[in-house]
Amino acid sequence: MSELDVVARIRRMARNNFLGDDCAVLRPRPGEELLVTTDLFLEGVHFKKESIKAAEAGQRCQVRGLSDIAAMGGTPRWCFVSLALDGASGSGWVDGFYRGLLALARRHSVELAGGDLSVARRIAADIVVIGVVPKGTALRRSGARPGDAIYVSGRLGQAAVSRYRLPAEPRLALGRHLRGRATACMDLSDGLALDLYRLCKESRVAAELDHPLPVAPGANLEQALSGGEDYELLFTASPRTRIPGAFRGIPLTRVGSIVKGAPGRMRFFGRPLKPVGWDPL
Amino acid sequence: MSELDVVARIRRMARNNFLGDDCAVLRPRPGEELLVTTDLFLEGVHFKKESIKAAEAGQRCQVRGLSDIAAMGGTPRWCFVSLALDGASGSGWVDGFYRGLLALARRHSVELAGGDLSVARRIAADIVVIGVVPKGTALRRSGARPGDAIYVSGRLGQAAVSRYRLPAEPRLALGRHLRGRATACMDLSDGLALDLYRLCKESRVAAELDHPLPVAPGANLEQALSGGEDYELLFTASPRTRIPGAFRGIPLTRVGSIVKGAPGRMRFFGRPLKPVGWDPL
Repeated sequence: MSELDVVARIRRMARNNFLGDDCAVLRPRPGEELLVTTDLFLEGVHFKKESIKAAEAGQRCQVRGLSDIAAMGGTPRWCFVSLALDGASGSGWVDGFYRGLLALARRHSVELAGGDLSVARRIAADIVVIGVVPKGTALRRSGARPGDAIYVSGRLGQAAVSRYRLPAEPRLALGRHLRGRATACMDLSDGLALDLYRLCKESRVAAELDHPLPVAPGANLEQALSGGEDYELLFTASPRTRIPGAFRGIPLTRVGSIVKGAPGRMRFFGRPLKPVGWDPL
Repeated sequence: MSELDVVARIRRMARNNFLGDDCAVLRPRPGEELLVTTDLFLEGVHFKKESIKAAEAGQRCQVRGLSDIAAMGGTPRWCFVSLALDGASGSGWVDGFYRGLLALARRHSVELAGGDLSVARRIAADIVVIGVVPKGTALRRSGARPGDAIYVSGRLGQAAVSRYRLPAEPRLALGRHLRGRATACMDLSDGLALDLYRLCKESRVAAELDHPLPVAPGANLEQALSGGEDYELLFTASPRTRIPGAFRGIPLTRVGSIVKGAPGRMRFFGRPLKPVGWDPL
């Protein structure tokens, strides 16, 4: 298997005219801003090769990128995949990985527009997704204000109790719906406690979690607070903005309020909450 | 060292307001197209940690991306770095890596706009560079036509004989100069024989190399034909286009001609030339 062979296979699978040059050429429309996100997906850190199929690995890799676009209210358009293969993974694994990754991409009209290939001791992938958003409407982490209500989508701790199930679909429709409604938004990739801390730091506010969390069936409170990879949305909205109890079947639950205070200070039912979650370092 | 700490350090070094959200928001100007490239930079494959300093590793990583933008005639604007650290590399290595990477970025007015951090057994980085080019002017691999002259910039085999020296500056000014002049262009990252093959395949043409190659001092012919990481430009131009012998001190050497024939067929002074070069797989 040479690099030329693998690239030829991927081009056939991607069915497009990208991948032929040193760079992909993108043509955004006037009035659009571009969203760019990049996420590592590493064997032994983000997945175990023994326990998931290649197609599932590809899908999980893609979800990481698409979820970041959802968090900013955007529409994903192009993806790029840099993949380092271990010596043991043959063309069957490569085909499966791209099949899973491309299937999820196609459901959201995302084109594979480029990438890189290499070898490593363990499989390492980096997914880059580029999306678009109408100018000036991207949801940010920095917009939360004291008095805002804090919400989460879905059920928390889901990924911690169902490691062998596929992750949630990226919340792209919800993210777009929240444009002009949410004051701040991000995706829950490393757990509520750590991700809410990041949102509070960017917004220079504090938070009080004083409503019951929507804990996934079978998960405990710690998994709901600090489990990674749920890929749900965490967002804030003014108390004057009506947020329904569900959006297209996905529960939206108020979990607390933004308050004045030291940036990043958090309380959970009156007790200090530490920013503990999934940290790869 | 937590992820929050490392991100805070990098934000201070990058001195900008990116890196706070799930995605970077880019604002290209009307009439511009975007160029996107992604390149892996892996310990044990692209560099040895023992033999180069962290700052040099950062610079080499950045060159890979910038050179691809140069190859398409673009101007780089933003970069993203996904970095998996091994357990042994502390904050000194991380600072050095970003210092080298950012120094080269600043010389070309490129902003660090995002990335990801994780851990791995060996250091693995993925560099993403986004550039701009006036609409419709990007240089492609697919534009070479029979009768075109084939040129290379600089001296070939340089990287093979000076592994411990810093690589050439990316040929960004030359790439822009070639817009409207070259019929096809790409950068020499994997050696002339393999890269010319790729250009010929994309253009559906064959090539005759029948002029002396500009071999770097100390390099042999094999290194000039198949050595990787020279980051010079390979381009073709109509015989009616005047290409000077040098551009801003960089030699431009005619090495052969594009001819009709089986796509990718190459000859070197009459003998078949195989597409052998640096292949990580």
